[in-house]
Order: sequence, then C-alpha cells, then structure tokens
Amino acid sequence: MNLIIAPIIGVVALLYAYYKAVTINKVDVGNERMREISGYIHEGAMAFLSREYRTLLIFAAILFIILGVGIGWTTAICFLVGAAFSALAGFFGMQVATKANVRTANAAKDGGMNKALSVAFSGGAVMGMAVVGLGIIGVAGLYLIFNDITIVTGFSLGASSIALFGRVGGGIYTKAADVGADLVGKVEAGIPEDDPRNPAVIADNVGDNVGDVAGMGADLFESYVGSIISAITLGLIAFGDEGALFPLMLAAVGIVSSIAGTFFVKGNEGTNPQKSLDMGTNVSAIIVIVAAYFLSVSILGTARPFAAIITGLLVGIIIAKITEYYTSTEYAPVKQIADQSNTGPATTIISGLAVGMGSTAMPIIVLAIGILVAFYVSGGSADAAQGLYGIALAAVGMLSTAGMTIAVDAYGPIADNAGGIAEMCELPPEVREITDQLDAVGNTTAAIGKGFAIGSAALTALALFASYTQVVGLSVINLTQPTVIAGLFVGGMLPFLFSSITMQAVGKAAFSMIEEVRRQFREIPGIMEGKGTPEYKKCVDISTTAALREMVIPGLLAVIVPVLIGLLLGKEALGGLLAGALVTGVLMAIMMANAGGAWDNAKKFIEGGEHGGKGSEAHKAAVVGDTVGDPFKDTSGPSINILIKLMTIVALVFGPLIAEFGGMLIK
Amino acid sequence: MNLIIAPIIGVVALLYAYYKAVTINKVDVGNERMREISGYIHEGAMAFLSREYRTLLIFAAILFIILGVGIGWTTAICFLVGAAFSALAGFFGMQVATKANVRTANAAKDGGMNKALSVAFSGGAVMGMAVVGLGIIGVAGLYLIFNDITIVTGFSLGASSIALFGRVGGGIYTKAADVGADLVGKVEAGIPEDDPRNPAVIADNVGDNVGDVAGMGADLFESYVGSIISAITLGLIAFGDEGALFPLMLAAVGIVSSIAGTFFVKGNEGTNPQKSLDMGTNVSAIIVIVAAYFLSVSILGTARPFAAIITGLLVGIIIAKITEYYTSTEYAPVKQIADQSNTGPATTIISGLAVGMGSTAMPIIVLAIGILVAFYVSGGSADAAQGLYGIALAAVGMLSTAGMTIAVDAYGPIADNAGGIAEMCELPPEVREITDQLDAVGNTTAAIGKGFAIGSAALTALALFASYTQVVGLSVINLTQPTVIAGLFVGGMLPFLFSSITMQAVGKAAFSMIEEVRRQFREIPGIMEGKGTPEYKKCVDISTTAALREMVIPGLLAVIVPVLIGLLLGKEALGGLLAGALVTGVLMAIMMANAGGAWDNAKKFIEGGEHGGKGSEAHKAAVVGDTVGDPFKDTSGPSINILIKLMTIVALVFGPLIAEFGGMLIK
Repeated sequence: MNLIIAPIIGVVALLYAYYKAVTINKVDVGNERMREISGYIHEGAMAFLSREYRTLLIFAAILFIILGVGIGWTTAICFLVGAAFSALAGFFGMQVATKANVRTANAAKDGGMNKALSVAFSGGAVMGMAVVGLGIIGVAGLYLIFNDITIVTGFSLGASSIALFGRVGGGIYTKAADVGADLVGKVEAGIPEDDPRNPAVIADNVGDNVGDVAGMGADLFESYVGSIISAITLGLIAFGDEGALFPLMLAAVGIVSSIAGTFFVKGNEGTNPQKSLDMGTNVSAIIVIVAAYFLSVSILGTARPFAAIITGLLVGIIIAKITEYYTSTEYAPVKQIADQSNTGPATTIISGLAVGMGSTAMPIIVLAIGILVAFYVSGGSADAAQGLYGIALAAVGMLSTAGMTIAVDAYGPIADNAGGIAEMCELPPEVREITDQLDAVGNTTAAIGKGFAIGSAALTALALFASYTQVVGLSVINLTQPTVIAGLFVGGMLPFLFSSITMQAVGKAAFSMIEEVRRQFREIPGIMEGKGTPEYKKCVDISTTAALREMVIPGLLAVIVPVLIGLLLGKEALGGLLAGALVTGVLMAIMMANAGGAWDNAKKFIEGGEHGGKGSEAHKAAVVGDTVGDPFKDTSGPSINILIKLMTIVALVFGPLIAEFGGMLIK
Repeated sequence: MNLIIAPIIGVVALLYAYYKAVTINKVDVGNERMREISGYIHEGAMAFLSREYRTLLIFAAILFIILGVGIGWTTAICFLVGAAFSALAGFFGMQVATKANVRTANAAKDGGMNKALSVAFSGGAVMGMAVVGLGIIGVAGLYLIFNDITIVTGFSLGASSIALFGRVGGGIYTKAADVGADLVGKVEAGIPEDDPRNPAVIADNVGDNVGDVAGMGADLFESYVGSIISAITLGLIAFGDEGALFPLMLAAVGIVSSIAGTFFVKGNEGTNPQKSLDMGTNVSAIIVIVAAYFLSVSILGTARPFAAIITGLLVGIIIAKITEYYTSTEYAPVKQIADQSNTGPATTIISGLAVGMGSTAMPIIVLAIGILVAFYVSGGSADAAQGLYGIALAAVGMLSTAGMTIAVDAYGPIADNAGGIAEMCELPPEVREITDQLDAVGNTTAAIGKGFAIGSAALTALALFASYTQVVGLSVINLTQPTVIAGLFVGGMLPFLFSSITMQAVGKAAFSMIEEVRRQFREIPGIMEGKGTPEYKKCVDISTTAALREMVIPGLLAVIVPVLIGLLLGKEALGGLLAGALVTGVLMAIMMANAGGAWDNAKKFIEGGEHGGKGSEAHKAAVVGDTVGDPFKDTSGPSINILIKLMTIVALVFGPLIAEFGGMLIK
C-alpha cells in the first residue's frame, strides 16, 4: 500500500461533496418570501465568516512570521495551509448549509419527510466530506511533500487556531443572538419564536449556522487532523514508516465507509427517520471496524493496534450512553432537576450544578480505564512507544467516520433553520412539524457524536501530549518537582479562567443585543403590526462585532501561556501545565455540557406537561436553569475541548524552541 | 533546646484556655428567658456533637483494626489519639461557645461593646487554644514516645477523619437549618429572622456553632497537625533531628505569641473593635516572624528556612487580599453581579459563576510562585529535600498563629449567636446593634483567615504529598506513564464528585427541614400568635440525622479511593491521583468560596439600597444567587480543603502497605 492513496481518497471525498452540493442546488428554493428570508440568513452567515476570517488573517500573519523565524518556514507554511483548509471547510459547509435550509423547508412542503430528510442530510454531508477530505489531503499531502511529521504539525496548529476562534466566536455569536431574540422577543414582547417581527430573528438563525455548523466543523477538523498527526508521530517511533501509513489508511477507509453510509440515509414515508440515520452511522462503523482489523494485521503485522481502536470506540459509545443518562428526560437526573424546579430557581441551579459535577465521575473512570487498556493491549508494558501509539489510534478510530458524524451533526441545525424559515414565511404547520421531527431525531443521534467528541478530544490531547514529550526529548515529567507542580496548578486553572472569560463575553454580547432589539421595537414605526421592517442587519452586525471582539483574549491566552511557561520554567513545567489543563479541561467540558443539556431537557420535560407545564412557577425556574446552561453547553464547554488540544499543539510546534531556550527562570 | 518544650507550651495553652473558660462562666447569663433559649442551643449543639462522635466511633473502631493489622498497632493508637484529640478540641470549643453566646448578649446589654467584645473573643480564644494546645501535645508527645514520625502520622489521620466528617456534617447541618428557617419562616410565613415562633430557629443557631465553630476548629486542627507532621518528616531528611525540632519550636513560639496577642484584644468604648482584633493579630504575627528568624539561625544554622516562612506568610496575605477583591462590596466583581441582578436570576448566576471561576487565576498564580520561591529560597536547587522542607515550613509558618486565627474565626459565630438570642429574648435593639457590629468586624478579619486556610491547605497537602513520595520511596512520579495519567484523571474528578454529593445532601436535608417547619406551622395551634411553643427539638433532630446520614458516603470515598487506586494501579498512580485531587480541589475550593462570598455580598450590597434595595426584582434575583452560594461556600468548598489533605494522609499512612502490595492490576 502506498501513502498516495490517502490524498486520492481525500479528493474523492471532495468530489462527493461537490456532487451533493450540486444536487442540493437543483432543489427548488420555494416562493419569493422564502428566497428573501434565506437570503438574509445566507448573507449574515457569510458576512460573519468573512469578517471572522479577515480578523484571523492578522493573527495568522503574525504567527506565520513568528513560526518562520523561530521554528522554520516549512512549518510556517504548513500552519498557513492548515488555517486555510480549516477556513475553507467552514466556508463550504456554511455555503451549502445556508442553501440547504430553505430547500429543506420547501422539500418538506412539496415532498414530505422523505425529501426533506434527504436535502437536510445532504447539506450536512457536504460539511462532513469537506472536513475529512481537506483534512486528509492536508496531512497526507504535506507529509508526502516534506517527509517530516514535525513540520506537518504546523498544519495541526493552523487547524486548531481557526477551530478555537471559530468555536469561541461562533459560540458567543449564537448565544448572544439567541438570548437577545428570546428575552426581548418572546418574554418581553410576547411574540412567538422565529417571528419575522423580531429584529434578532435572522441573527438567531445565522447563529445556528455559525455555531453549530461552522464552529462544530472546525472543531472536528481539528480533532481529526490532530489525532492523525499524533498517531503518525508516535507510529513512526513504534513501528517506523508502517506506523505512519496505518492511521492514514484507516482514515482513508473511514472516508470510504462514510460515503457508503450516506447511501443508507434515505427517508421512507411511514418509517422513523431515526432508523435511517442510525443505519447510515452503523454501516460506516462496521465497515471501518472490519477494515481496521485487516489493515492492522497487513500493515503492522499484529492485531494489537486493532484492539486499541476497538477500545476507543467502546469508550466513545459508553461515554455517549452516560451522557444520555445524565441529559435525557427519560432518566433520574433530569427528572430530579425538574422536581427541584418546584422550589424555585435556586434549587434548580443547585441540582443542575450537582448533576453536572457528578456526571463527570463515570466518563472519567471510563476514560481512565480506556487509556490504560489502549496502552496495555497495544503492548505498552513491553514497549511504551507502542502503548502510546495505541492511545493515539484509539482516538483515530473514534474519528475515522467523522465524515458521517459531522453529516449527522450538521444536519440538525439545517433542519432547525428550515423550521425557522417555515415559521417566518408562514408555511403550513405540517412543514414545521416535519422539520421539528427531523431536528429532534438529529439531536438524539448527535448526542452520540458528543460522546465521541469528548472522548476523542481527551485521547487526542493525550496523544499530542505524548508526542510533545517525544519532540522535546522528555522521557520523564516528574510530578515531585516543584516546577512541574507549579505548571500543573497553572494549567489546571486555565480552563476555569477561560470559562469565566467566555461566559462573561456571552453576557456582554447578549446585553448589546438586548439593547438593540429593545431600541428597534421602540423606534421603528409599525414593527409590531408587521408593517415596519426590522433592521435585521443591525442585529447581525452586533452579534458579529461582539463575537469577534470577545474571541481575541481567550484565543491569545491559549497560544501565549504555554510558550511563556515553557520559556520561563522549562519543558517539564510545560508538560505539567498541559497535563493540568487536560485534566480540568476534560472535567469542566463534561460538567458544563451535561449540566447545560440536563437543564435544557428539564425545561422541555416541564413543557411537556409535568409540574404544571408551560407558564407554571416550575417552568419559570426551569427557564432560569436553561438560560444558565446555554453558555455552558454551547460556548464555554465546547471551547474548552479545543483549548486543551490547541495548547498541546502549540507546545508541540514550539517544542524545539522550548527545548533549547526553555527554563530561563530556573537556570 | 529540647523537644519537651513543645508539649509543655501545649499544656500552657490548655491552661490558658481553661482560665478563659472560667472567666466566661463567671459572666452573668441574664434573665430566665435567656437562660432557657441558650439552654436549647447548648443542648442542641451538644446533642449533635455526641451523636456525631458516636457515629464516628464505629468508623474509628473499624479503621483502628484495619490500621493495627495492616500497618501496626502503634500507628493505630496514634490514629485513635488524633481522632480523640480533635473530638476533644471540638467538644471544648462548643461547650464554651454555647455558653459565651448568651453571656455576650447579656454583656452587650449591661456593659456595652467593650464587655461584649471581651466575652465573645474569650469564647473564640478557648477554641483556638484548645486546638493548638491539643495539637502540639499530640504531635510532640507521640513523637517523644515513639521517636518515629511515620507512626505519628496516624495522629494526623485521626485528626483528618474527624475534620472531614465534622466539616461535611456540620456544613450540611447548618445549611439545612438555615434554608429551612429562612425559606419557610422568612419567605413563606413572613416572620423576621431569629423569631422564636420559627421552629427551625434553634436549629439555625445550633448550626452556627456546629458548622462555624466545631467544623472550622476541626478543619484547622487538621491543617495545623498535618503541616507540622509533614515538616518533621521532610525536616528529618533535610536536616536530621534539628529539622524535626524546628517546626515544633516554631509552633510553640506561635502559641506563646497567640496568647500574647489575645491580651491586645480589648474593646475600648468609642474605638472600632476592628482595630483591636487587628492589633492582636498583628502582634502575634510580628512575634512569630522575629522568633522564626532566630530559631531558624540557631537551630538549623541558616536563615533559608526563615525565608520560606516569610514566603508562606506573603502568599497567605496576598491570597486574602485577592479574596477580598472578589468578594467585597467595594470592588468591581460584586458590583457586577449586583448589576446583573437587574436582568434576573439567570444572569446573576452566570456572572457569579464567572466571577468564581475567574477568581481562581490570581490565587493559583500566587500559589505557584509561592511554591517555587519557597522551594528555591530554601536551597532546593542544590538539595531537593531542603526545598520540600521549605514548602512544608511555609505552611507551618502560616498556621503557627492558628491559636489567634481560630479565636478570631470562632468569635464571629458567637457574636452572631448572641444577636440571635437577643432577638429571641426581645432584648433592647441596642444589644442587637452591638452584636451585629461585632459580627461584621469578625467577618472582615476572618476573611484574612480564609486566605490563610486555603493557602496553608494547598501547601500542607503538597508537603504531605512530598512526604508520601519519601515514605513509599518514589523519587519520580512520571507524568508520561499511563497509570499516572489515569490516576491524575480520577483524582481530578474526585472534588467534582464530592461537591456534587455534598450539594445534593444539603438539598435533601433542607427539604426535610422545610417539610417539618411547614408541618409545625400547620399543626401546632397558636404558634403564629406566640402562644403555642414550636417543637425546636424536632428540627434539631432532623438536621442532626440528615447531616450524619449524608456525611458517610463522602467520608468513605475519601478514605477508600486512594487505597484502592494504590492497590490496583500502584504507588505512582496513587501519586497521580493525589496531584490531580490537589489541583482541582484547590481550584474548586477557591471557586466555590469566592462565588458564594460574592453572591452573598451582592445581595447585601443591594439590601444596602442599590438597584432598588430590598424587595426589588434585583434583590429577588440576588437572593437566588445567595441561596446557590450557601452550599458552595459553607459546605462543599470548605469540605474540599479537607478532602485533599485527608486523601494524602491516607496515602501516607497506608504507604508501606501500598509500596509492598500496590499495583496488582498492572503487575
């Protein structure tokens, strides 16, 4: 087998994405009003992306020069390519998602569930294929060109930087718009959700694309690329060139199996669309598992790496099931929060926080066991390098079907957006029913994806951490040394600080939005009667400006702190910092995601008629919980996942510099 | 100098405590009603203590046998003595505190501020002297008897166990009673705080003693003993016998200086009692600093350890100042939370959590710098043992004036209780004014104590961690090993799980209390008119039973998990576990303490007339924040401080066993 297969498969993925995009474009947009509304959303989303990318250009240019001078121009070029590819994947995905949404609504109107599912899922598939296609072309291509994985790590740094800014910016954007639209529109003015009289309604719909499509895509692009690069780095040590070939072939097979999976996602009238999505997901997973065995035996001459991959998949599935337990209305935790809503917002908050904190226990234990098993089944007791390679492969295995996972993830917001458009264009209520059902199904399947996202982020960060120790030549990071302990403390603190900053950023951005919506309701004549047109663009601008302004500090923090600690206290202390950030980062990410999810569903549970239903005191308390949970689960939580990976990649890329000049203070 | 001096000074401390207790007893109790009410509180507090100690007896008996068989009977005996001494200190302190409260109220009535301050402070001083006296007698006495610090570590284990149960149990007790009294009495029935018609009012006042006097005392007893023992352990390695002598002498000097300090706490009519408390605190600190220099030079022949002690004191003071910044109504964070209260409870909670999370940054950086400075100024770069000894001494230095610190800490709840009694016995309003003023002053001074508590807990845990590595013969705990990473993850998770459990426990206990108070209001005829007598004892029982029931699982967790991980994954993994728990434990403790404090003061800020004052929508939102903050700052937060130390001591005591049999799974 030859490395060249990998980028070729990547090109195939891109061609498939193009084919899907063309198919979507052929679907009818619908009436003039639908064209107009979807035009607003498309423009808003693209305006955000282009302003975001322009801001990032400055950042990328500066970092490019620093990298070029400090590390080498080849690494700097890889960095630029990584940033560009990530931006490109986001651009493609958004382009298509904002075209698929209105067409999904129209398909639901004209063709029913079957057709709507097909359009929405195709939209998601474009994003998925763009991510994996560009990802594998980038990694394999640059590796073929430079033949040095250390240089290619720059690609990962580029992807990570865009991902962090994208997630943080997107998360702030979407929550500010959401809170503004809800608080002033729904609560104060008493108009329904997605009502076209609400000036923030377009921004809210743009936010779904910006946060849940582009942000999520950049996030998974980063994980995908990071896991493959760390596996190659560790594989070269453990198995030589075959160790580098294997993860790339695994990823290539994953792309093929994802494409195969998409053919199974077909709505049949009368059957549950859930089955169709599950079928597609399962088909891709099974193909990858079977292929992984044969690849493992044929390339590496042993089935041990295959066992590590299975371990990774099991960890992902179990974490997903645990997540479901803590956040679904079916089980005790959400019901308990709903119960506590009867005694007011304070008890709702306390029980939600308690659920979130308590929900870290099982995933962490599973993760810890997974790390140990992946290490030892890969032969880590005899050869540590093989064990670490196993951990990296566990992550690669979880992410190999990312093409499919992202398709399912991105399909949800497209269906959600379609529902919004249906509402704004006053389409018949059946349309909204179909899009709501599609959205709900997407949420359930996406929950599994979240388990994989957290698990793979932790394993990828760990594998990158192991790669870092190799690059700087550390066989020991001694926890009994005070510099390591100091690093551990500072690293552990960063996710707390980071969450604090992002939560406050959402608050500030939401505040500006609230003021603007109130102003428009006050100043635009006839707005409430549907005669005056709201200035949608102003709200879009406010969210955009606020998101871009607020993403700078957290982004810089993630890049500067690791380098600073490395230079001041040395490479061991930096190792401590990364380990500390990894541990509290994973904990905080799980805590925030689950608390947010549980609050959200406790509210929905009550809205389903429990504890007095909508409008009851319990419901009011549950709304408070949900509002607190929003920045938890959609801004701070997902951003932390990237933070821990980005910091490790920064350490990895700047490793040679730190190994040479690090530890100025203690020398 | 001779070791025997230390226990002799300990006896002096106890005699001084006895003298103070006798002085208090001579003060007039006041009228019949005051005698009756204070009798209820005294009985309730003592009933809780005796039931708590009986529960702990079972735990102690089991652990005694395990220790005896597994480690050795001498260690087991030291454990029993430690548990008994901690219990004894709590018993003394509570005895006197529940006598001083009513006498403080009466002194305020008859003698004014001057006299009231003197009685309340004397009550606190008894607790302080009992803690340091019994602490130093125990450590120095047992060290003299067994001449083996490894055995004496059992004493620390006993102290820690009682402390954890005391803090968790006391924290649950006080918050359940508080919430029950407030929510049903103040909010539902609309009667004022401390109204004798409220059935939970006695339980609420008992709670102040149980949580803030006994719980706090056991906490500091543990830190005090733990820091000295870890300093002796590390001192023997770094300096031989002189290294063991020095911390004991430092502690002895600290006791003398604390006694000296108490003489400066004298109310003068017309002057602010704050000055008087500050004067006492400063006098003891200055004496200790000067003595530390001479002791360091004369015993160890170098001023380096003195520099480490100064570092510790600076860390404590800076953390206290940072804490003040984040929790005082004077500064931006609390004002910002109050601002956010205008937009409802959700934004109040988000901003409070953001403040809490963000407030970890500076203390952690200060702590990290402190660790490095203490290590390197003590000569750690040439001899690591001396550096670690320096870290332990930094903690001992911070705790050397614990006698004074505890006196100031315990004086607050006594004054608070006196105010409650004044209310219940309908004493003239001037009395309540005096006690309120005394309470407020106590809070400010106690804030400094909290900074020292967090700083010293972190440093003590770190020193104990270092001692652990020495005992099990680990010169390296390698963070690149998967078992260590697994341990780090599981350890990091424990404070999250622990907080989840304790927060839910408060919720459950408060719920039972709410039901009971509602029942009494409903069923006891004439209760609202003041004719029917509420069944105070029932409420006391409910809090007691709930607290004891709920403290078991968190307590067992802290003891069992470290041993289990050590036996399964080995001593290195256990080291990782301890480090992980240390880092997230300190972070969570700071986050919870500061968020709780900030919410509390944001509420008070609004009650002072800002944002519409009492009864406004902003105030309602602020009350929600305060209610969420209560279990944060009074139950979960303080308990975590102990958790991290207890787990480390468990590891230290069971070290020999783990070194021999540990790592079954990976062998």
